Amino acid sequence: MSARAALTVLGIDPGTASTGYGVVSSRGSELTALCGGVIRTPAREPLERRLGAILDEVDALLDEHAPDAVAVEEIFFGRNVRTAFAVGQARGVVLGAAGRRGIACFAYTPQAVKLSVCGAGGADKQQVQRMVGVLLGLEGPPEPDHAADALAVAICHASQIDGRALGTAPEGVRAAAQNPNV
Amino acid sequence: MSARAALTVLGIDPGTASTGYGVVSSRGSELTALCGGVIRTPAREPLERRLGAILDEVDALLDEHAPDAVAVEEIFFGRNVRTAFAVGQARGVVLGAAGRRGIACFAYTPQAVKLSVCGAGGADKQQVQRMVGVLLGLEGPPEPDHAADALAVAICHASQIDGRALGTAPEGVRAAAQNPNV
Repeated sequence: MSARAALTVLGIDPGTASTGYGVVSSRGSELTALCGGVIRTPAREPLERRLGAILDEVDALLDEHAPDAVAVEEIFFGRNVRTAFAVGQARGVVLGAAGRRGIACFAYTPQAVKLSVCGAGGADKQQVQRMVGVLLGLEGPPEPDHAADALAVAICHASQIDGRALGTAPEGVRAAAQNPNV
Repeated sequence: MSARAALTVLGIDPGTASTGYGVVSSRGSELTALCGGVIRTPAREPLERRLGAILDEVDALLDEHAPDAVAVEEIFFGRNVRTAFAVGQARGVVLGAAGRRGIACFAYTPQAVKLSVCGAGGADKQQVQRMVGVLLGLEGPPEPDHAADALAVAICHASQIDGRALGTAPEGVRAAAQNPNV
């Protein structure tokens, strides 16, 4: 364990129905998953209740983990205006909650996330999921998808901060695997 | 003044740079503007700080006025995915803040707002602004645009709740004009 300060990153994969989240702590090349999961909101609830529930849960995560940064994946909507608007609403809640605490937010393209986690911008979903599990020393690929995606973007941000690609850092993987917090 | 309970509506015209707001109280056909203005966020600030500032201000409005409902205008983006995403983020913050307090939110098309305020779905921006001023007994049309739009959608919701078009209720206009809160 180095004397270097740990960096805690909250990764978020925003969506009204399912918002994935994952908190990753990095210290040098050591990576640790502090938590991960999905905020699900029922479709029968009014939209404002669903966004309110996301706001509550994100606030709770920010309270509990006091992350140094929030990382979100940049999504490409093509021409789908409805989807862009819907995802925008969920993302706005997340950014607003972080921003009013003065926590900086960062966005990464899917390619940047894949490159950081797998060492290849064209990696497929299963490869990303598997590498997230390996990098964080988990027993298997994290489930469900949205949690894995959130952990992946958190790893990506931690690697940007370190200025290197974590996908090529096996010593970090081993160190994280031994961490009791995983 | 009737014994009928007052209904308080927070109208919002969401946007990252400028979010218009207006609080309207209605009691039967009496309409009163409790406040109106614009939350402006500087473009030089990071997006999350801007959305955080909107969240703070909306929370303060909800605290101060404890509205029964929040009304927002439904916007049509055509094919503009970027704008839809940006407005979605600001609207998400507003809906999330209201939703977690259990305050119901309502959306109205621009046509519904114009019909309610002016009695004609095809009314132009100046007509809407002028009628908002008249209906609320203000000395002139409210400024700036975004505040007027927010007051207009709040009036629209109050009229929906009353089940009638306020644009054709001159007695309501007079009553509101005498209200010292305006």
